Amino acid sequence: MALTIREIEEAHKRIEAHIFKTPVLRLKDLDDILGCEVYVKAECMQISGSFKYRGAMNKILSLSPNDLRRGIVAASSGNHGKAVAYASKEFGVPAAIVLPYTAAKVKVDRIRSWGAEIIRCDVTERFEVAERLCRERNATLLPPYNDEDIMAGQGTAGIEIMRQCPGLDAVVVPVSGGGLIAGVSTAIKAISPSVRVYGAEPALIPRYSVSLKAGKPVDVGANKTVADALVSSIPGNLCFPYVSAHTDGFFDVDEDYILKGMKLLLLEGKLLCEPSSAIGIGAVLQGLVPISPKDKVCFLISGGSASLEQIRKLEQI
Amino acid sequence: MALTIREIEEAHKRIEAHIFKTPVLRLKDLDDILGCEVYVKAECMQISGSFKYRGAMNKILSLSPNDLRRGIVAASSGNHGKAVAYASKEFGVPAAIVLPYTAAKVKVDRIRSWGAEIIRCDVTERFEVAERLCRERNATLLPPYNDEDIMAGQGTAGIEIMRQCPGLDAVVVPVSGGGLIAGVSTAIKAISPSVRVYGAEPALIPRYSVSLKAGKPVDVGANKTVADALVSSIPGNLCFPYVSAHTDGFFDVDEDYILKGMKLLLLEGKLLCEPSSAIGIGAVLQGLVPISPKDKVCFLISGGSASLEQIRKLEQI
Repeated sequence: MALTIREIEEAHKRIEAHIFKTPVLRLKDLDDILGCEVYVKAECMQISGSFKYRGAMNKILSLSPNDLRRGIVAASSGNHGKAVAYASKEFGVPAAIVLPYTAAKVKVDRIRSWGAEIIRCDVTERFEVAERLCRERNATLLPPYNDEDIMAGQGTAGIEIMRQCPGLDAVVVPVSGGGLIAGVSTAIKAISPSVRVYGAEPALIPRYSVSLKAGKPVDVGANKTVADALVSSIPGNLCFPYVSAHTDGFFDVDEDYILKGMKLLLLEGKLLCEPSSAIGIGAVLQGLVPISPKDKVCFLISGGSASLEQIRKLEQI
Repeated sequence: MALTIREIEEAHKRIEAHIFKTPVLRLKDLDDILGCEVYVKAECMQISGSFKYRGAMNKILSLSPNDLRRGIVAASSGNHGKAVAYASKEFGVPAAIVLPYTAAKVKVDRIRSWGAEIIRCDVTERFEVAERLCRERNATLLPPYNDEDIMAGQGTAGIEIMRQCPGLDAVVVPVSGGGLIAGVSTAIKAISPSVRVYGAEPALIPRYSVSLKAGKPVDVGANKTVADALVSSIPGNLCFPYVSAHTDGFFDVDEDYILKGMKLLLLEGKLLCEPSSAIGIGAVLQGLVPISPKDKVCFLISGGSASLEQIRKLEQI
């Protein structure tokens, strides 16, 4: 494994001037409900709307001017596409974003508004379509998670959490392919090995809990979930070893509890996030997370691309 | 005038251990839309849901054990009632809250859940009803704004803003009776006279802009507004002199722009506030506030009692 705290610290220095150092917020009103001291790392306030901007920025800053001129391609359920589109706009680089039909409309509209070209396809074909485009155009593929520069970029959120929130007992991270939790867990365990790092994923696509039991990446099959940013059916093979080495537990969260988490964060925490980002809070509400009232727990709120339509669905929950 | 920065600093020391030091958040995504560097003081995250907890706590901590035993009465459009109910619960003091029929249901339910007695009446009768109750029960009235202990408590938000956000050019404050802006403007002008302090009130109840022109408190008449926390028809006579001395301008904001402000803060800023609290942002959207792109502007987000029903109304805006 080549990703260490050193690469993540270097990534932090590289991207620091370009990203937004999002706040860690203390949400006291949630303490009694969740049964711990509640903190959130508000990456829903990150530039482009999610933590994905960190990885995209780290990757783009490592490309040569020639690479950049030929353009960038990304395959994404939305947030990675938004991050790449926004970062490309910042550097004047042509970008094409391959989006599954399941991507939330609010994300697709935003990517289009930032001037990127959009290509739609089935969620299972997205990487194949992106690779073909790269070959045709001699462009560079920016993978959403299975890449050590991307993981290092996402891991910078872990460094910030440790600086902003001393004395932490646990961190809960939303998981899809595993780029975020690979970087964040690697950073946190290097800085303070006693801090527990947990992953939360949709029960309908339990790729990490199944793969960790099997000891290797297993494809659990595509499925539709309200957590539209957490749709990878298999762990990234480059992410898996870091996640396996540096995490303390994984939780499979039911659809209802993902939405209950979003509703709680909105109405009591006063923070808007997308369903995927509330999954860690949902895991606690579902009784899955081993925490006690004295624990200081930080929930990584990964993105904020929620529409009024999505919020209206919370009335039924 | 007896309220100075000294009283506000003493209030801050008195209440500091009981209140939540809410964050000042930098909302970069709003810069281009509002035409300034955007900061918000997130009192929507304050205990009991609004800044009113500061004043209520300062007043209650100044009462004798005997006063407290006989109980507390408050008349309130909602947030002051919530603050008094929550603070009374903290100290085990019996509280009766007089609420106008126009108070938002989400606030009424919350007050009830904290164990306070609730008395409903017409918005114009609320002070009369509260005073009668106090006489009958020999209880203490906690006025919502027209009281120097209350103003001093609210002013502590101004002290925090100045410490949390150095180099500020302007602060925009939602206004009803004037307790918040009286305290905040007194604090800010004492700390840094060059910081501009603006007030924003519903165009349907323009009690301060009319009164400041007249040079005395004028009753502009009751009216219904989406800003259900800003319904006083006349400035508090004790608040008026401080507001008159320490503010740099008042803006009368249309109903649509109040809701546009709430929608922007929610969908782009990722923060949920009640309509009243978004009125400062609404004032900028309506083009009323003299600011330039280089100005660092802090919007005081006074409370967060919004329901999913209220959020659904934003779909029409």
